[in-house]
Amino acid sequence: MVSEKMAGLGKVRSVIREIFEYSKVRGAEIGPENVFDFSIGNPNVPAPAAVNETIKELADCGNDYWLHGYTSAQGDMETRQAIAENLNARFGTNFHKDNFYITCGAAASLKICITALFNEGDEFITFTPFFPEYRVFVETAGAVLHAVESDPATFQIDFDKLAAAINPNTKGIIVNSPNNPSGVVIREEAVEKLAALLNEKALEYGHPIYLIADEPYRELVYDDSLTVPYLTKYYNNTLVCYSYSKSLSLPGERIGYILVPDEMEDFGDVYAAVCGAGRALGYVCAPSMMQHVIAKCTGMVSDLSIYKKNRDLLYNALTEYGFTCVYPDGAFYLFMKAMEEDAGAFCEKAKKHELLLVPADSFGTPGYVRIAYCVQTEMIEKALPAFRALAEEYR
Amino acid sequence: MVSEKMAGLGKVRSVIREIFEYSKVRGAEIGPENVFDFSIGNPNVPAPAAVNETIKELADCGNDYWLHGYTSAQGDMETRQAIAENLNARFGTNFHKDNFYITCGAAASLKICITALFNEGDEFITFTPFFPEYRVFVETAGAVLHAVESDPATFQIDFDKLAAAINPNTKGIIVNSPNNPSGVVIREEAVEKLAALLNEKALEYGHPIYLIADEPYRELVYDDSLTVPYLTKYYNNTLVCYSYSKSLSLPGERIGYILVPDEMEDFGDVYAAVCGAGRALGYVCAPSMMQHVIAKCTGMVSDLSIYKKNRDLLYNALTEYGFTCVYPDGAFYLFMKAMEEDAGAFCEKAKKHELLLVPADSFGTPGYVRIAYCVQTEMIEKALPAFRALAEEYR
Repeated sequence: MVSEKMAGLGKVRSVIREIFEYSKVRGAEIGPENVFDFSIGNPNVPAPAAVNETIKELADCGNDYWLHGYTSAQGDMETRQAIAENLNARFGTNFHKDNFYITCGAAASLKICITALFNEGDEFITFTPFFPEYRVFVETAGAVLHAVESDPATFQIDFDKLAAAINPNTKGIIVNSPNNPSGVVIREEAVEKLAALLNEKALEYGHPIYLIADEPYRELVYDDSLTVPYLTKYYNNTLVCYSYSKSLSLPGERIGYILVPDEMEDFGDVYAAVCGAGRALGYVCAPSMMQHVIAKCTGMVSDLSIYKKNRDLLYNALTEYGFTCVYPDGAFYLFMKAMEEDAGAFCEKAKKHELLLVPADSFGTPGYVRIAYCVQTEMIEKALPAFRALAEEYR
Repeated sequence: MVSEKMAGLGKVRSVIREIFEYSKVRGAEIGPENVFDFSIGNPNVPAPAAVNETIKELADCGNDYWLHGYTSAQGDMETRQAIAENLNARFGTNFHKDNFYITCGAAASLKICITALFNEGDEFITFTPFFPEYRVFVETAGAVLHAVESDPATFQIDFDKLAAAINPNTKGIIVNSPNNPSGVVIREEAVEKLAALLNEKALEYGHPIYLIADEPYRELVYDDSLTVPYLTKYYNNTLVCYSYSKSLSLPGERIGYILVPDEMEDFGDVYAAVCGAGRALGYVCAPSMMQHVIAKCTGMVSDLSIYKKNRDLLYNALTEYGFTCVYPDGAFYLFMKAMEEDAGAFCEKAKKHELLLVPADSFGTPGYVRIAYCVQTEMIEKALPAFRALAEEYR
């Protein structure tokens, strides 16, 4: 009698959560320090000290009506202003407060954008590997998701495959750079090519194709030479979905935003549809105190040097042991080829060495595993002999 | 090209928000102290001191991974346990942690429940007057909302009208007690009658009819003799949607829960569908720090004596002036008959006296206005001569 689709979504645990549960059970058996759990993307680096300091100051402000009261549905004005100023200073953009709609994190941002854009028959495109919840958000909105295979050598966009997939029903393209799970950043020339292709197709079909940029990992890049292009500067019809989950290590606080730039075709309609979708989905406003924290802390980042250290340690060791890994420009995942065709079977063998890895089948890339390195460096060091032993098993 | 429905929802400001905006403009003209704004249900009573104290303690806990990290999708285990224990102590129930799903407030709770239950062709019923967003949540889920007229003398359920409205497509009944905007509490005998009717109809149609209890005002009742029946004790297929917005004065923090009791038919499916709907709608988890605050503060209430004082002051004065008001058992609204048929025109005349009232047409009750008394008592005292003058205009 309930919605079978919803009951199904509630019953099937994600692969990641299954492994996480196993980790707890196994930890109880042999001691948690002996289980090498690389399954969860929960940042282990604390929030910048200013976050908790700001929280304490706010709690003492003596104005609960302001602190804990409703903000406007778009979000607190000062918060939106602060975000605009920070982005403008960093990216040379010209955003203002009315380009922003504050949300309960990136998942909410994505779901709201998809709901705002969707009309019957619409299709969305993303690229493998992709965060599996994209499929949930798109399909439960009533739309179709096409996952276009990336170039298997670089995990950059395969433009021939993309061009073949775009059709008159294509409403939007979801891009995620730095990518979860590959860590790959889409390079500037690829962004330019993507913008040109979408403009050409939009002209051909007589309607815009929206670029939905899922950017929770924007600040998590580790090589100074590399910049993550700011997509609104390359393509007008870009909606940016941002979250502070990773940059400020606040994944549980559910705080982020949607950015609709002025250059967006029919800006007023798109922004209104974002507001309407937020309303329809039950999001009254984003958590108020955390909005006020963001007004002070937007643009700060947690200590990312730990992730860089972890990345270098893990990437260098695993490639030395004979594993094939995609070089991760950013995020905090290492994307590794399983040493046999069936990544699930490979992960089971890894489990025998107490290594908990995530098979990437649900990311649209069978034969690969995801290794989340947002963990203690000591755990990685302790786990390396296990990785070496795993590699030797396949010699 | 965007969803017209969503753009429409985003463009049309609610009547309440229109008045709120006018209030700011008018306040700038004549001084905010001279505008008597009774439009918004934003609690003016601060949160209990323990809330901000707990926030500060948590900010100092030194464990950001726990404090700001993801909780499970159902919500933090200790938080759910604390809620269960508090309800059991107050209502003699036997809830346990797995009856709860923590949400981003009552709007999210309602939207998630409706989405969890909905199948093509389903209808929901509510009673006038009702919170206008019910229509948004139900209709954007694809369902139909029937608003059954309440008994105009008492604003209790009219069972003849309800019986006539229930049909084989009826999936659920949304009740809101204490009611926004009437303040009326559904009495125990009405709850018993409702349970009997729903059981009878469920038997006749061969499927359950769910009772969705929207309860953000549960603790806001002012007469000691009056108890708000706990609906799961009367009807098994009850989903309780709760929010701490009013009891703890935290409307902006978006924190509440859905309660699915063990007695629920197909408990496992219903609970799973709630989890699935939360996932599909982009709710990853409720804000983590606020969940930990609730673990300590559930069951506390803000100083409600101010609302009682305001209610008595306003009700006694307005009835004395000749207005017809529904006696508000609880919540913080006074529901008053307009002195002419067109409540909008009546509110325009009130505006001339700087009184900002909300016409209740969008609540399904033309001819009435809502007066939110979650305001400073001094403002009510200052506004009384204006109410008197308004009444005199209609002599």
